[in-house]
Amino acid sequence: MEQVFLKRINEFYQWMKENQLNATVITSPANVYYFTNFYSNPHERFMGLFLLENEEPILILPALDVHEAKEKIKITKRIYGYADHEGPEMIIQQYVASSHERALGFEENQVSYKKASWLKSILKIKDTFDIEEGINQLRLTKDSLEINYLKEAAEWADKAVEYGIEAIKPGRSELEVIASIEYKLKQQGIEKMSFDTMVLTGLKSAAPHGKPGKETIQKGDLVLFDLGVKLNGYCSDISRTVAVGNISEKQKEIYSVVQQAQELAIKSVKAGVPIKNIDLAAREFIQKAGYGEYFMHRTGHGLGIEVHEYPSIHEKNEILLKKGMVFTIEPGIYLPEVGGVRIEDDIVATEEDAYVLTSFTKDLIILT
Amino acid sequence: MEQVFLKRINEFYQWMKENQLNATVITSPANVYYFTNFYSNPHERFMGLFLLENEEPILILPALDVHEAKEKIKITKRIYGYADHEGPEMIIQQYVASSHERALGFEENQVSYKKASWLKSILKIKDTFDIEEGINQLRLTKDSLEINYLKEAAEWADKAVEYGIEAIKPGRSELEVIASIEYKLKQQGIEKMSFDTMVLTGLKSAAPHGKPGKETIQKGDLVLFDLGVKLNGYCSDISRTVAVGNISEKQKEIYSVVQQAQELAIKSVKAGVPIKNIDLAAREFIQKAGYGEYFMHRTGHGLGIEVHEYPSIHEKNEILLKKGMVFTIEPGIYLPEVGGVRIEDDIVATEEDAYVLTSFTKDLIILT
Repeated sequence: MEQVFLKRINEFYQWMKENQLNATVITSPANVYYFTNFYSNPHERFMGLFLLENEEPILILPALDVHEAKEKIKITKRIYGYADHEGPEMIIQQYVASSHERALGFEENQVSYKKASWLKSILKIKDTFDIEEGINQLRLTKDSLEINYLKEAAEWADKAVEYGIEAIKPGRSELEVIASIEYKLKQQGIEKMSFDTMVLTGLKSAAPHGKPGKETIQKGDLVLFDLGVKLNGYCSDISRTVAVGNISEKQKEIYSVVQQAQELAIKSVKAGVPIKNIDLAAREFIQKAGYGEYFMHRTGHGLGIEVHEYPSIHEKNEILLKKGMVFTIEPGIYLPEVGGVRIEDDIVATEEDAYVLTSFTKDLIILT
Repeated sequence: MEQVFLKRINEFYQWMKENQLNATVITSPANVYYFTNFYSNPHERFMGLFLLENEEPILILPALDVHEAKEKIKITKRIYGYADHEGPEMIIQQYVASSHERALGFEENQVSYKKASWLKSILKIKDTFDIEEGINQLRLTKDSLEINYLKEAAEWADKAVEYGIEAIKPGRSELEVIASIEYKLKQQGIEKMSFDTMVLTGLKSAAPHGKPGKETIQKGDLVLFDLGVKLNGYCSDISRTVAVGNISEKQKEIYSVVQQAQELAIKSVKAGVPIKNIDLAAREFIQKAGYGEYFMHRTGHGLGIEVHEYPSIHEKNEILLKKGMVFTIEPGIYLPEVGGVRIEDDIVATEEDAYVLTSFTKDLIILT
């Protein structure tokens, strides 16, 4: 496993070289985890992984976290903690400062203005350089360790949908169904969801910004699940829509259109094709069926340490799919007077096709 | 209710005047909520409440959120949305730009370096000014609307502890107990916890950084709960420790010391006394009992829209308590070989004493 992390960090040193950067600091917990195998959110405290030209990486973090960091991290021995009453300033100056004055690379979108100003001042640096593009490029394709993690998270998402369906009963509220799903997951040791679990019933299933509440499930409803599990730091994200009792022909029709559109989009996946093709495969099918205006979001988003990352699966993305990109495919149709349907799987692009991580059935389930 | 928000924003305009600031932008969702009654986290999208000298506030946000914002916000009619394909730039320049070039105030700790650079560039501004101090000063004392919200959140925290105690059984895991608490809360419509619910049993109760897991409750354990509910945007935070079966004299002793220390700290509360007195009341009692080195954190923290805010209840805080400050009082003793005890209430400072929002019993409960 150590090799995986060494490979990642060496590729980033290479990127630094290509961009003539001799000093960077990585502070976002997700990125630190990606390069080190150590996850910690130090909140208002400082944690930074300093990468300096021709030196081993240096991790500076709160003293409380040093023990765990040393256990988890194999890519460097240079792990230094600071006590709250000292603060990180002296230790940064001791190990990092002075000779690296040219430009400091950091995640300009993640680091606050105040923290950036502070870093510039203690390191006596004038120029800055945004490194997010370099990190995002690396994180864009997943290695086999990551795909294993994502697969495991996806399997729990499948189970979560199963628990949700078991909990459906006319008269039960959306929040009760969510409570039941998360109860069963926690019982089995799953601590974190990727995002707030969504269960929407009836016409609420058609609300793009719907929030689960006390609304109860009724016969004739479509119930939309959108949820995911976070495991080993990696996210899954699945949507399924099921019917309760007899539903109308219209409801069945939109289900069938979304199901076919989603399968077409999955079939379009293969290394080398432009990403927009995936979106268009679903979108054009839905448009031809006459529901184009009711599919008002992109077809999917990248998935990994964060539940939304690159690549974005939208109709204008000309970037070519690469082996190892992981993303969702989740077309939907939302008819205000009828209800909404969304079907979402987690997908890995391979040389030949799509490896689908989620596997809960997509055939229409009608609960009676 | 409108008056409350007008009062808050006018006090902030006053602060701007005193600091000779004629333009600020507030972007953190918590602060926007504090001033407007509208909560939204737009994630990577831009939302900003612009306050310009002698003008009504201007809120610029994603078009999707305009409808809800207009429903909730009474302090201004100047609410403008932008579509994703346009971005917020033009609309900011249209309503905000040009004549406000002196200095822009913003939350330097919240706004990313990239967003700050972007704002400076589109508004053609060179100087910046950190406004967090001004906002924190206002948020430091709570008005009656806030205290009502905090009281309601605290009542649910009391119930959550009750549910947790009901769920305790030898052989049950920490995660199962958490699952049971959150299940019952969600059933009743409570959607959000203030932070990840903590249930630690046995020797884990003594681990300051313990994470709940599959460890099961055994007879003789102390079980430590630390949890809170978020309601109307406001947080509660309670800790209770209970015994399962017969516990040792040592365990009973540390319980009793913490209980007395916590009550002494509460008795020390009253507007006008230095905040450090609260910490010292608990700390000195625990030290005299011989456990000083096992109480290794501050006595408490402010509580409000965020679960950790000002004031910090530590032994060096010389600031004087003011009526309406809300904070936790939560001393603890953590003996590595014995277990840990923490007791925590949510407190409002009044002119005469402490108004305690949480009310679950603090007498030692021994579950048999």
